[in-house]
Amino acid sequence: MHTDLLLSSSRKFIISSLFYFLAMNSFAQKKEPIFSARKSDPVKMGWMQGFPPPKDKILSVADGSFFNFPALRWSVVNMRQLMPTVNVSRGLQAPSPLSYQLDENIDSIHFLPWGAKTEMTWEASLWKNYTDGIIILHKGQVVYEKYFGALKDDRVHAVMSLSKSFAGTLASMLVADGLLDENKLVSFYVPELKASAFGDATVREVMDMTTALKYSEDYANPKAEIWAFSAAGNPLPKPKDYKGPIGYYAYLETVKKQGVHGQAFGYKTVNADALGWIISKVTGKSVAELLSEKIWSKIGMEQSAFYQVDALGIPFAGGGFNAGLRDLARFGELILNNGKWNGEQIIPQQAVADIEKGGSKEKFAKSGHPLLKGWSYRDMWWITENAHHAFTARGVYGQTIYIDPTADMVIVRLASQPVADNSNNDPWSLPAYAAVADYLMNKK
Amino acid sequence: MHTDLLLSSSRKFIISSLFYFLAMNSFAQKKEPIFSARKSDPVKMGWMQGFPPPKDKILSVADGSFFNFPALRWSVVNMRQLMPTVNVSRGLQAPSPLSYQLDENIDSIHFLPWGAKTEMTWEASLWKNYTDGIIILHKGQVVYEKYFGALKDDRVHAVMSLSKSFAGTLASMLVADGLLDENKLVSFYVPELKASAFGDATVREVMDMTTALKYSEDYANPKAEIWAFSAAGNPLPKPKDYKGPIGYYAYLETVKKQGVHGQAFGYKTVNADALGWIISKVTGKSVAELLSEKIWSKIGMEQSAFYQVDALGIPFAGGGFNAGLRDLARFGELILNNGKWNGEQIIPQQAVADIEKGGSKEKFAKSGHPLLKGWSYRDMWWITENAHHAFTARGVYGQTIYIDPTADMVIVRLASQPVADNSNNDPWSLPAYAAVADYLMNKK
Repeated sequence: MHTDLLLSSSRKFIISSLFYFLAMNSFAQKKEPIFSARKSDPVKMGWMQGFPPPKDKILSVADGSFFNFPALRWSVVNMRQLMPTVNVSRGLQAPSPLSYQLDENIDSIHFLPWGAKTEMTWEASLWKNYTDGIIILHKGQVVYEKYFGALKDDRVHAVMSLSKSFAGTLASMLVADGLLDENKLVSFYVPELKASAFGDATVREVMDMTTALKYSEDYANPKAEIWAFSAAGNPLPKPKDYKGPIGYYAYLETVKKQGVHGQAFGYKTVNADALGWIISKVTGKSVAELLSEKIWSKIGMEQSAFYQVDALGIPFAGGGFNAGLRDLARFGELILNNGKWNGEQIIPQQAVADIEKGGSKEKFAKSGHPLLKGWSYRDMWWITENAHHAFTARGVYGQTIYIDPTADMVIVRLASQPVADNSNNDPWSLPAYAAVADYLMNKK
Repeated sequence: MHTDLLLSSSRKFIISSLFYFLAMNSFAQKKEPIFSARKSDPVKMGWMQGFPPPKDKILSVADGSFFNFPALRWSVVNMRQLMPTVNVSRGLQAPSPLSYQLDENIDSIHFLPWGAKTEMTWEASLWKNYTDGIIILHKGQVVYEKYFGALKDDRVHAVMSLSKSFAGTLASMLVADGLLDENKLVSFYVPELKASAFGDATVREVMDMTTALKYSEDYANPKAEIWAFSAAGNPLPKPKDYKGPIGYYAYLETVKKQGVHGQAFGYKTVNADALGWIISKVTGKSVAELLSEKIWSKIGMEQSAFYQVDALGIPFAGGGFNAGLRDLARFGELILNNGKWNGEQIIPQQAVADIEKGGSKEKFAKSGHPLLKGWSYRDMWWITENAHHAFTARGVYGQTIYIDPTADMVIVRLASQPVADNSNNDPWSLPAYAAVADYLMNKK
């Protein structure tokens, strides 16, 4: 694959973490024409199909081919076939039924993409955004649901950094339950992190990513720390000349401080993994176990979910979660309903309220997200701070849970865009969600 | 781990296939004292527990540690955390309820183990056999169900070679449906196998393992072909000096003939993988997809199951299946009921009848299973040919589905014995099953 040409043999090792492939894709985009959503359909392209699959259709973590666009369109729905994972059990009960009131008019809703001069239809936006699955709940009912690419209703999809919002929600629950003190230093809960940048940060600063870390996620920079994090988390055997830390936690111990904690939002994945570590120290459970126990087995999920793991079996809290479309919608609805499901308080109301109240807009403004003006970040959720008080969980390549409390609406969109950064789909997504919210609120 | 001492660095590569570890265990048994079932409890031993787990508790496919006894007692319930896998979806429907009529008297049933002079209780046999989970259905009701070790009712367990009976059942279904001609040569369906030993064998000879193959599964022999098969199927990146085939299928193409097909039963795993290939060529689906479509999504399974896969994503039909205890019992009950479930014919009656009628006792007798006198083998099931017409699916380390049509009884036992070969647990298992059958038949 073309990534081979870009990599030295030692660099080739850094293969399993998604971040690595984000970068490779960034490079790749400059070299290759972008396939359209229809042209890049992973089923039509025949990845890993056939007995055996033809050589040029075989995807692998080892050579990096699995995460090159357009192959990633297959991989996002087949992560388990590529790497070790740990289950997030749905339990054994019957799935909770979703009621349907499908509205075909949604396809023709028009909106003006940011920076555009002509309007686009909702339906066209799905193709524009390389959508794999999309569902809209309004007043608790499914009004829209579609699948594309390799995703089906009985399959799961990688949610990338949207995973962080699950870590943030679990932490917010522990704070609400009085089991986790957000004002304590990280080193109180995780002594192993005392000498690292996290040592003198508060739990709250980690939850809101206002830690001051010498850590770059600039995928275009081969010296960015993200590479070392990826190499550490890679579950494949390390090469002989590898001298770095083994596992996500061991990497976290090496993170150096740069600046003063608490002053600015800085979106850095390692915060989510540090938070995962804190959660596990407090509860004695992995985020996978805890998520199953507290949420996934409690609200009638249809499918078990999973996390990818490192060589020590530690779930990748910052980006390794995979789940079904309708189950993510159930989770969104649970949050929209202030943590209640069928009359039972699953997530403490205070934990959801803490997410919804948002974070510091001033600290967020220092982070350089030009498209997300006026937003804030709280408990690893993105808060739009718009008139509808909408907030969202986000992952690269277009993964979204978008919750609009004013419109009583939840949208989940799973996707496999050619380009990782969500600034490449926000202009055709966020105004589309707002248009659907307006339509639903004014219906009848 | 001690396996390191036994292996050259190139041999160390042959790591992912279970067979490799069977051999390592055979070696290990001679060196290490055997832990009792209670002493080797995987939860108490703390494998992969802690954040992070202590170094001496970390298990890995790469160094082979995961399959050393007693660590394998953890691994058999956590295969997904160790290797890539492919889902066998249960679908999205509600699980089918099992009705319960638990009978505590079963624990005190006495039986005489083969070769013993004193009787043993059923309960004692569970510990003797390193049982992880056991369930007994009588007249369709659960009369006994217990979990030990790392297994729980919402977790799955590796079933080892018991996997073969699923391949055999699927093939028998295709024959019954007229989609697969058991009298045709393998090469008719899989042209890639024409030059191999399988080329001029019939499908039936593969289904009943009466092919004549130059292929040894003698784990104690370092030159046995099983090693090359293991190396080919290993999903980890191949070492630079590796020159063998890549993937299970590519290995099958290299199997040489030795003798005349159809004359003797010879238990060789590669037959099950050749059958998996035939099934996939006929249906266009992997055994994982087909098993989900035909059975796993049809009878209200509680949990999705999975197969481990090779680097091409091909499921290991001969030994890579993992499933829940109660779901295996549902499958056993489906077979006992001649393929019917809640009045619906899921498996053609003819396909089950073909299993039950058994194979050639003469051909079986040539195979050297001294404990299984008078048995036969058909459609990758083991037929006791006893007065109850009992038949069984079997996997190393004690995995069993035991079906006794006369007693209207299904037993599923999942286990993690120190020694792979079932001759190490049959003397404390098969007479125990017969004693329970007698008890249940004479009850009331």
